[in-house]
Amino acid sequence: MREVFQQELREVRDRLVQIAELVEETIQQATTAFGTSDVALAEQVIDAGERVDQMAAELDELSIDILARQQPVASDLRLMVGALRMSASLERMADLAQHIAQLARYRYPESAIPQGLRKTFAKMGGIDTQMAEKLVELLREPDQRLIDEIRDLDDALDELHAKVFEKVLSDKISTDTTGVVDATLASRYHERFGDHAVNITKQINFFLSGAAE
Amino acid sequence: MREVFQQELREVRDRLVQIAELVEETIQQATTAFGTSDVALAEQVIDAGERVDQMAAELDELSIDILARQQPVASDLRLMVGALRMSASLERMADLAQHIAQLARYRYPESAIPQGLRKTFAKMGGIDTQMAEKLVELLREPDQRLIDEIRDLDDALDELHAKVFEKVLSDKISTDTTGVVDATLASRYHERFGDHAVNITKQINFFLSGAAE
Repeated sequence: MREVFQQELREVRDRLVQIAELVEETIQQATTAFGTSDVALAEQVIDAGERVDQMAAELDELSIDILARQQPVASDLRLMVGALRMSASLERMADLAQHIAQLARYRYPESAIPQGLRKTFAKMGGIDTQMAEKLVELLREPDQRLIDEIRDLDDALDELHAKVFEKVLSDKISTDTTGVVDATLASRYHERFGDHAVNITKQINFFLSGAAE
Repeated sequence: MREVFQQELREVRDRLVQIAELVEETIQQATTAFGTSDVALAEQVIDAGERVDQMAAELDELSIDILARQQPVASDLRLMVGALRMSASLERMADLAQHIAQLARYRYPESAIPQGLRKTFAKMGGIDTQMAEKLVELLREPDQRLIDEIRDLDDALDELHAKVFEKVLSDKISTDTTGVVDATLASRYHERFGDHAVNITKQINFFLSGAAE
């Protein structure tokens, strides 16, 4: 029974890795779609986000099924609760990538990014993508170093988020009201994406140390 | 064993009710603090939000403990997973109320609400408060009518959210860049609050029909 459970935990982990890989691709493409006003790519992101929802729902069903059949207790039970929480966070991360892509689509053929903030948003998107990439690695193999790196990236993201507001409010960038709204929302979406990545590191450390037994 | 489990489900439900009551108070106070630039009240909201975090964490521990001891299957297991999801949504709702209160605090002694949007934000806050109030009722006693009412309120909220952007972008309201940023964020926070309330209705119907056996 124990061996079957270990095998099922590996299946859960593999599915989390697959979802995280798709989330990584999604945030990278959303960043490009937002930066280059690429509507076709934005549509792809929106479709991929729906795939993530579907995969997360299927993983939740599997997790509930494992809980029912294996009746885990103690740390094994916490692993399974952690898996449910991680799938919820990954789903939200894909939602946020969708929202970023939608901003590009709404403003097309105009750019959603105000002049003077292009580099900042490219950096935010780059950091989100790196965070997702490190989550994929972390889900494959537990590593405290990766957890620390993801938290450092989140700090960098929070600084950039503050910088966006600083720039917007200083009126140093030339933009209209639409640009201010878009910059505010996009910055918020990127920042929340990072928060969810950090939430996953909180679960993952425990989850992977158990699954790697 | 079955009777003990029913008693524990009632305990979980009672705690969800308590948390929802505090969330209701929190969003109501956040709306007032935001509308009247009341910094002392904003501080209270921030403290109450921390209490919600604590209560939700304690409820999660209880739920995991019940899962371990009672080893529920089928619908009982789904009830417990639903409880974990509802506590996460309630926690997020309190976070969003905190964010709204923080906007009031950041801008003090100025008002965070641009002229011409006061009524709209008062309405959004009123709807969020009603949603939280109905969630409290719904957690106490399952009722399809309440679920429908919460979804209708969410539709009204989404319309107001769109109206905020419409007003801001039409430049019909006189405001500076700070006002645009604040209005964008506050509107987004109110809208997300409603989304979480709807997420809870999705869990609650199932949870309460089981707990009321």
